[in-house]
Amino acid sequence: MKVGVLTGGGDCPGLNAVIRAVVRKGVQEYGYDFTGFRDGWRGPLEGDTVPLDIPAVRGILPRGGTVLGSSRTNPLQQQGGIRRIKENLAALGVDALITIGGEDTLGVATRLADEYGVPCVGVPKTIDNDLSATDYTFGFDTAVGIATEAIDRLHTTAESHMRVLVVEVMGRHAGWIALHSGLAGGANVILIPEQRFDVEQVCSWVTSRFRASYAPIVVVAEGAVPKDGDMVLKDESLDSYGHVRLSGVGEWLAKQIEKRTGKEARTTVLGHVQRGGTPSAFDRWLATRFGLHAIDCVRDGDFGKMVALRGTDIVRVPIAEATARLKTVDPARYEEVGVFFG
Amino acid sequence: MKVGVLTGGGDCPGLNAVIRAVVRKGVQEYGYDFTGFRDGWRGPLEGDTVPLDIPAVRGILPRGGTVLGSSRTNPLQQQGGIRRIKENLAALGVDALITIGGEDTLGVATRLADEYGVPCVGVPKTIDNDLSATDYTFGFDTAVGIATEAIDRLHTTAESHMRVLVVEVMGRHAGWIALHSGLAGGANVILIPEQRFDVEQVCSWVTSRFRASYAPIVVVAEGAVPKDGDMVLKDESLDSYGHVRLSGVGEWLAKQIEKRTGKEARTTVLGHVQRGGTPSAFDRWLATRFGLHAIDCVRDGDFGKMVALRGTDIVRVPIAEATARLKTVDPARYEEVGVFFG
Amino acid sequence: MKVGVLTGGGDCPGLNAVIRAVVRKGVQEYGYDFTGFRDGWRGPLEGDTVPLDIPAVRGILPRGGTVLGSSRTNPLQQQGGIRRIKENLAALGVDALITIGGEDTLGVATRLADEYGVPCVGVPKTIDNDLSATDYTFGFDTAVGIATEAIDRLHTTAESHMRVLVVEVMGRHAGWIALHSGLAGGANVILIPEQRFDVEQVCSWVTSRFRASYAPIVVVAEGAVPKDGDMVLKDESLDSYGHVRLSGVGEWLAKQIEKRTGKEARTTVLGHVQRGGTPSAFDRWLATRFGLHAIDCVRDGDFGKMVALRGTDIVRVPIAEATARLKTVDPARYEEVGVFFG
Amino acid sequence: MKVGVLTGGGDCPGLNAVIRAVVRKGVQEYGYDFTGFRDGWRGPLEGDTVPLDIPAVRGILPRGGTVLGSSRTNPLQQQGGIRRIKENLAALGVDALITIGGEDTLGVATRLADEYGVPCVGVPKTIDNDLSATDYTFGFDTAVGIATEAIDRLHTTAESHMRVLVVEVMGRHAGWIALHSGLAGGANVILIPEQRFDVEQVCSWVTSRFRASYAPIVVVAEGAVPKDGDMVLKDESLDSYGHVRLSGVGEWLAKQIEKRTGKEARTTVLGHVQRGGTPSAFDRWLATRFGLHAIDCVRDGDFGKMVALRGTDIVRVPIAEATARLKTVDPARYEEVGVFFG
Repeated sequence: MKVGVLTGGGDCPGLNAVIRAVVRKGVQEYGYDFTGFRDGWRGPLEGDTVPLDIPAVRGILPRGGTVLGSSRTNPLQQQGGIRRIKENLAALGVDALITIGGEDTLGVATRLADEYGVPCVGVPKTIDNDLSATDYTFGFDTAVGIATEAIDRLHTTAESHMRVLVVEVMGRHAGWIALHSGLAGGANVILIPEQRFDVEQVCSWVTSRFRASYAPIVVVAEGAVPKDGDMVLKDESLDSYGHVRLSGVGEWLAKQIEKRTGKEARTTVLGHVQRGGTPSAFDRWLATRFGLHAIDCVRDGDFGKMVALRGTDIVRVPIAEATARLKTVDPARYEEVGVFFG
Repeated sequence: MKVGVLTGGGDCPGLNAVIRAVVRKGVQEYGYDFTGFRDGWRGPLEGDTVPLDIPAVRGILPRGGTVLGSSRTNPLQQQGGIRRIKENLAALGVDALITIGGEDTLGVATRLADEYGVPCVGVPKTIDNDLSATDYTFGFDTAVGIATEAIDRLHTTAESHMRVLVVEVMGRHAGWIALHSGLAGGANVILIPEQRFDVEQVCSWVTSRFRASYAPIVVVAEGAVPKDGDMVLKDESLDSYGHVRLSGVGEWLAKQIEKRTGKEARTTVLGHVQRGGTPSAFDRWLATRFGLHAIDCVRDGDFGKMVALRGTDIVRVPIAEATARLKTVDPARYEEVGVFFG
Repeated sequence: MKVGVLTGGGDCPGLNAVIRAVVRKGVQEYGYDFTGFRDGWRGPLEGDTVPLDIPAVRGILPRGGTVLGSSRTNPLQQQGGIRRIKENLAALGVDALITIGGEDTLGVATRLADEYGVPCVGVPKTIDNDLSATDYTFGFDTAVGIATEAIDRLHTTAESHMRVLVVEVMGRHAGWIALHSGLAGGANVILIPEQRFDVEQVCSWVTSRFRASYAPIVVVAEGAVPKDGDMVLKDESLDSYGHVRLSGVGEWLAKQIEKRTGKEARTTVLGHVQRGGTPSAFDRWLATRFGLHAIDCVRDGDFGKMVALRGTDIVRVPIAEATARLKTVDPARYEEVGVFFG
Repeated sequence: MKVGVLTGGGDCPGLNAVIRAVVRKGVQEYGYDFTGFRDGWRGPLEGDTVPLDIPAVRGILPRGGTVLGSSRTNPLQQQGGIRRIKENLAALGVDALITIGGEDTLGVATRLADEYGVPCVGVPKTIDNDLSATDYTFGFDTAVGIATEAIDRLHTTAESHMRVLVVEVMGRHAGWIALHSGLAGGANVILIPEQRFDVEQVCSWVTSRFRASYAPIVVVAEGAVPKDGDMVLKDESLDSYGHVRLSGVGEWLAKQIEKRTGKEARTTVLGHVQRGGTPSAFDRWLATRFGLHAIDCVRDGDFGKMVALRGTDIVRVPIAEATARLKTVDPARYEEVGVFFG
């Protein structure tokens, strides 16, 4: 049995932990051989491989990124892409494929399985935690931890100067990172893509916080969108949900707050720092278990499935189903934290 | 409505986050008054209180420990203890009690509720994560994170000197901290209280790791017990499960490994460092949500209940039921990580 | 003896450690009374004070920011400002003033001392480490640590996607933070305000790094300025040295690199995160020692002096002299790290 | 020119940073070849080498430990050891040797240079910071940072339970780690090897701290020794200064405090955690600069020298002189922090 492994899409702390677990269990317990594909779907598309064995996965558990490299190459957008992959896999003698990635990466796996009968197992990966089939995805806890630590630091500078600090965190379509880090960091306002925000309401929370002699921290997901239309958009375009996309919502919001409240406001955009570096213990644990269970799917011949976390159990769900719906923050969960606003 | 709040048992990162959430929501949304009791059950036993209002909970979210203090005072072991508590609560006009604690603390709450009709709501707290009614307890993630970071550090010293490093972590009756931190830290042996370990087997894993030119890290829960009877116990006594308790299993094991393998071995006992300091983002999030839901129990008149985590939902379970059974590491979960041993 | 204390200018990890040390030693060893002034020079200007005694400094050692608040209020820019301060100090019975701050704050102290005979002792504070009289200022080590950790994290994302990552760090006039964090983080290019950079040279380093199959990290101080004039400045203005000031040099540089090398580039602007939160052990140690020695200056009647670090010793230097010249990165020190470029 | 490199003695964060800097500058700027020796002096003694070139030092900057391995092998204690080294170096064509290590390792280098004319350059390494020729050694700042973070965490548990917490840190002959981490962590008692301590005095500080309603943290260097002779020594032996060596002073002290004050006391022994893991930014900076200057010594033919830090400059001192005297904490520096005791 020869198993191919690839990682696609944006990088995410925990990818190496999955790869290590897959290979350790596959080699030691099942005697499988492995082929690593380079840079996501580009690897099988171009037949670009790396050796993947026990020595190759030594010491990679605590390392961020992915030893296989990643890319956003989408073979569905290339004439004959899927067929080419099918042929390359056959030529390399790859019997099954473990694809670690988000919606796009797993979508290709579904097509490969459905249309060409390539045996695929999926491991979900999205730092935004917006996959409906699983309680959590790895990388999310690390990102929340980094954002929370940043918010902790900003509190002191906010209070020493009685300024507003706006922190823009990741989350284009789902506000999970904003919700969790804002809650954990003691933010006074949390804005998420799921609910258009009212700048006046934000300013009133900011003002009420100052009245209590504390400086406000506003956490805003990069995909959050204001209700009112009076903003100047730097980069006006429609996202996949038909919303107007606002590039740089953090900076825009800080300026609005300054204008409307007369208070100084500063912005911090955490950016790629949130998705790099060593994974948290939680993410190493989750990613490792995903890897161990993914290779069990291969052994069981249980293809077309994706591993997922439910409570403290790892379960298997159909890939297609799993990526069908985005898991957004539901209104009740957002309301729950409203008591801390202002 | 006047609500009493106390924290009992060992301290645990997240206690202050619970207290803050209870008070913020109780005051702001329900208009309740609060009374803080000092040092766990000692507070209501002796009528020792502290003011508990919005200013009292400002800035405590990121702080470890508990602003209310804690103790292991058990009123069940005092003549007329429960009655005295009942009287003090009445004298202070306390209508309901939120008790944040482990098995012992919550056990008193059950008795108070059952025998004296005192309206109690429980919030589970055990750094060992060994409560069967909830997926996780707060403090556990922080402890695992600290232990994992220590293991990360020990890898380098183990490898530079080709020594065995034994890390003793918390966990008297349940091996969750050992299991999670050992897995996340890439330990080569993980020993838990749930399964008696075989020193010869440990030595064989250690030796095989050296053969692969890597230095082994052995993570051992403080409550782990060897199979064979040839050990010299520093402190021989029976624990509450009838097991022989071994004080200093880490140091004992290091000596055994040196004697049997001829390799140098060193021990690190992490001790109280694991339970102090700022809670992780996960624990702040969990503790805050526990607090928000506990005060909702009070508002709903839903007494005798404890809040618990199931997946990503906070649910309510009867206190008595919740503390009835210890949640230990089941054999399948321990077996899952066996692939990394040796 | 009654001693006034104030903190001025931007906040900086370690301010609270200074305040604590001053008060602990002043009260316990010399029996002094203290008056805290709020928000830098605004405090003595408006007679706005806070109590400052042993209980007021409990627990503040590990906390960022300043319990006294800060501001950029400059009494020299107000008609009769210095005289008003003189009068308020007299009315409050303040015999000596400890001023903790940067160039501007200490400049006022010099004037107060010279023109009105107010006994002042200075404690230097600049997160940029650009004061010539002292080897280091507190806050700098913390900022470097935070920036280094961010660079560590960015390496993984740079390599997984083979992108250029530009990190903009603090440093308007001096490149110390860029130099130290770039060196410690293993950056491939470090750009500082002291030496105009050549975009073509930067691109050639970037390209050569990619040829070695590694993704480049470019660390750029916010005050770094390109040599060539072909850039579009978002905010064109002259700084105090007559240089053209470039707002957002990081983002500008990333775009230039993309355009000229054809590689994807991303920017991270660390911003205020660098100056907040708990001080590093080094900064706590330095700030505490500064405080202990500043109060000794008061006891010795050694006014008009500033404490400074020389090697491992704390020495005293005239305030006026100390702030006369900016300590910039000298060419030899910059050249020293050039071996790591590209 | 072929340069040999070895690392001897206990491991220390920053060793890899030195190796990388030596090789990067040696290869890129001077065109040298390198030979890595394995496990300190064992390498040249047995002719055990590893390839050392640019690829070998990629990515090692942030990693603790040493890629060359280390040992305490002392060729002076072996018949003909020095001669054998001389012969192996000649056979391998090694023209100069860079030895990175502490007193013992550098002592061998002195002998090699003096008696056999082997051109040696030294890089000082001691996590204890007890070398008189240099302001700081790398690894020390990392160790202090780890110990300080542990003390921060212990404060919360000390206060929640009103217990004494004794923290034993590294430092057999010099109290630098205890002094710096105790100061930075806000310890209430700091005990160092340089001054015998009075248990009664310690207990009186502990008691006075409790009277102020705070729980005391006692930081004790592993080499600290009590004045009075009433202790039970677990491991009685004389150290190199003729002092009675006490193994486990932390635990012994906790018991004494419990017995004499009636308060609960707990001990944490940080152990090897202090010397492992990624180096702090300061240590990476210092170690890298040591490496850059060490290879410059080789280029200049300036042998028999050791690099050292003076203020912010790297200087060269004779190896023999540098290791002649231990740098201990002088009484004035210890007295300086006495204001925080009790």
